[in-house]
Amino acid sequence: MSASTSGPSTDPLLPRLAAIVGETHVLTDADALEPYLHDWRGLYKGRTRAVVRPGSTAEVAALLRCCHEAGVPIVPQGGNTGLVGGSIPDLSGTAVILSLRRLDRVREVDLSSDTMIVEAGVTLLAAQEAAEAAGRFFPLSLASEGTCTIGGNLGTNAGGTAVLAYGNARELVLGLEVVMADGAVWNGLGKLRKDNTGYDLRNLFVGSEGTLGIITAAVLKLFPARRDIVTAFVGLPSPAAALALLDRAKARLGAGVTTFELMPRMAVEMVVNHIPGNRDPLAGAHPWNVLFEASSPSDPDLRNKVETLLAEAIESGEAEDATIAASLDQRDALWRLRESLPEAQGHEGGSIKHDISLPLSRIPAFIEAMGAALERLVPGCRPLPFGHLGDGNLHFNVTQPVGADRTEFLGRWGEVSGVVLGEVVREGGSISAEHGVGQLKRDLLREVKDPVALDLMRRIKSAFDPKGILNPGKVL
Amino acid sequence: MSASTSGPSTDPLLPRLAAIVGETHVLTDADALEPYLHDWRGLYKGRTRAVVRPGSTAEVAALLRCCHEAGVPIVPQGGNTGLVGGSIPDLSGTAVILSLRRLDRVREVDLSSDTMIVEAGVTLLAAQEAAEAAGRFFPLSLASEGTCTIGGNLGTNAGGTAVLAYGNARELVLGLEVVMADGAVWNGLGKLRKDNTGYDLRNLFVGSEGTLGIITAAVLKLFPARRDIVTAFVGLPSPAAALALLDRAKARLGAGVTTFELMPRMAVEMVVNHIPGNRDPLAGAHPWNVLFEASSPSDPDLRNKVETLLAEAIESGEAEDATIAASLDQRDALWRLRESLPEAQGHEGGSIKHDISLPLSRIPAFIEAMGAALERLVPGCRPLPFGHLGDGNLHFNVTQPVGADRTEFLGRWGEVSGVVLGEVVREGGSISAEHGVGQLKRDLLREVKDPVALDLMRRIKSAFDPKGILNPGKVL
Repeated sequence: MSASTSGPSTDPLLPRLAAIVGETHVLTDADALEPYLHDWRGLYKGRTRAVVRPGSTAEVAALLRCCHEAGVPIVPQGGNTGLVGGSIPDLSGTAVILSLRRLDRVREVDLSSDTMIVEAGVTLLAAQEAAEAAGRFFPLSLASEGTCTIGGNLGTNAGGTAVLAYGNARELVLGLEVVMADGAVWNGLGKLRKDNTGYDLRNLFVGSEGTLGIITAAVLKLFPARRDIVTAFVGLPSPAAALALLDRAKARLGAGVTTFELMPRMAVEMVVNHIPGNRDPLAGAHPWNVLFEASSPSDPDLRNKVETLLAEAIESGEAEDATIAASLDQRDALWRLRESLPEAQGHEGGSIKHDISLPLSRIPAFIEAMGAALERLVPGCRPLPFGHLGDGNLHFNVTQPVGADRTEFLGRWGEVSGVVLGEVVREGGSISAEHGVGQLKRDLLREVKDPVALDLMRRIKSAFDPKGILNPGKVL
Repeated sequence: MSASTSGPSTDPLLPRLAAIVGETHVLTDADALEPYLHDWRGLYKGRTRAVVRPGSTAEVAALLRCCHEAGVPIVPQGGNTGLVGGSIPDLSGTAVILSLRRLDRVREVDLSSDTMIVEAGVTLLAAQEAAEAAGRFFPLSLASEGTCTIGGNLGTNAGGTAVLAYGNARELVLGLEVVMADGAVWNGLGKLRKDNTGYDLRNLFVGSEGTLGIITAAVLKLFPARRDIVTAFVGLPSPAAALALLDRAKARLGAGVTTFELMPRMAVEMVVNHIPGNRDPLAGAHPWNVLFEASSPSDPDLRNKVETLLAEAIESGEAEDATIAASLDQRDALWRLRESLPEAQGHEGGSIKHDISLPLSRIPAFIEAMGAALERLVPGCRPLPFGHLGDGNLHFNVTQPVGADRTEFLGRWGEVSGVVLGEVVREGGSISAEHGVGQLKRDLLREVKDPVALDLMRRIKSAFDPKGILNPGKVL
């Protein structure tokens, strides 16, 4: 029996929460709680007194006041699609889970200001669709976009496949509404592109994973709709050649380079072998591939420019071959190839995963050094560095040797990660490029983060949440 | 006699400072101190024990440790070109001025990572030139760029004329090195585009005007050199028409729209009448004008695109006339017209100045409402809203009525500002879009800022600088 099934009658807090949001929005039944108590990968399980589902910012504020007074921990949760256990409470059962999903209104679309105000529980897909319905483009794009919410995207400073041109979630927000630990509401829903009146609170809340305040709404930037999109798949000899191609593309197309995703040969093979409906877009086998996309609000000549660019790249030896999608179907097929990779990897056994970033210039040497070091550590293991090369962000996954024992391989997670992340830290990289810290990397963060930065983070946490009720045990 | 002339012999702190930086870098002579003790507009005067000129981050850290122990206030200063008194100490004479100008090295240019590491005392012009020498572009651009320094640009989150495409100073920095109040050094000189390992300290220091820590170096983003630049001057019927043109330009050219500067007719006349070498680029007189610039790393067709855009705008009635610069000389002439405006205004008597921003959609109504309200308050006064319309940022200056008494007019600063800024606050705007708070707007900030935000700012200040030695009396 979990604490969560003890029922409202034994917990004096619950009637107070129900008085704020209504009885039907305080969940305590074990079946109702179940989906809130574990992450989708099954890495984390937690317990809770109750899941509370407020329907407005005022209700969030009242809930926080109540929990603050009672010293009750609050774990905010959106779509619960996170990868680091950030939205799962601990096993003590003392925390309340605050589900923001009922805050799902698009409050306003302002075309003159190129902004929209959405509440925390709006899914990323719904936000994209609201922008599209208004003839605009909201560029944040992730695999989980149908489920993840804007509140979670901002709380974790989500990345995705359009960061190269448009930036992380951080760069896509102009203003925030945030409820503090004690229930005070910061109305920071400004639409201003420029505002130098004091400290940048907005960026402090973005990426703080619910440990400094609860984001309830945001002003998002809208961009011109993209009428011209050109997608290509390129075969290359090496990561260094991919970086040279990236340089060439940026010099030619500037901010028009939207996507630049690296995949090693083995990744293409895994997808083609395991996920029906995929095929290698190029005739020959190439050591490395790049999914490349350029886009523009209006550039009928874009396809020609990309063709010229790729022809030059082949001429110079940076690329070996390339194909440009000639239809929407072909474009979808190229993207499917990229997006099927995590699933395909599962068919090859266990993988030890890392979400790292590095200075772009260090990436080729890093990949080479890791290949040698990991082969020494686990002979036959298969490093699969793939992902957002344009941002310096690799999902550096290491798949088990063919035929090895999965459990035994995964048991070496600490050793393998130690080799990979040790080198990342030495090279000035990040141990969490886009997934955040949550529970998964909290202890590791203490080891690798600059001690002055850690000290400043702790000071901010104490200043904003002296009772420590906001998402305790996460980040710090 | 000022405290500054009392000499090192009477102040036990000074030998300790001299032991760190060397005697020649501790200035106490009145003549040597003079340029550090007032702002260039002459609005603020201060006193100091000494100006100290460290030559390295280690020296800055040692100075901070020393002053922290002794409880001595520190006022950081770069090029001293600020507009809000942020780099001038108070009249008590207790503070040390920390001049960062000797930290003037470009430590590294990394083309593969598109970054450069510069020290705080590097002038903005030197940073631009270092980028250019490497075949890249650093887009921050301000009138004071020959004198202002990167440390000051970041400390105040400087804006300028390329924000529309490239963002404020905040958006142009990837990493920082910062010395804390107690002398601890945060080495945050990362080159990473993505790093989700904890709170965003970088953006907290950017724009904090030296009240939270002393920025000693920064990793700046580099951009592809712009080979194609098209500059135009447009005559328009109204601010609403200018916003419509901006929408059209963004839909056509996306991030290629680099500059979009609004000027009323009267501003053009003032420049043409008072500043030699300027002429009206258009044959007829138009109620409003826009200086428009589009640019691209490589788009030989850009001029055609801008021509098409402007032809459509004239066809639709958004624009009345337009001219495109046909040579570098013509381009310089268009920019000179815009940049001569502040000087030209001085020839027309006193001006009451505001640096405001508004949601773009609110700007036309704001300009109209202010015209009527100010005419009621000071009949004949001449509102001159001009500047970075593309960012929602206007320098809303109000010039005295023709022939009025300058002093008497300037004596009504409070009344006039009350009308202008009251409406700005009601419309969700900012009372300081790009110049910062400093001393000038500190008291006003207390009145207009969201009280929850002010409370959070105070908590951060106390957490980072419990003794209150960093640039006291500024911002908060």
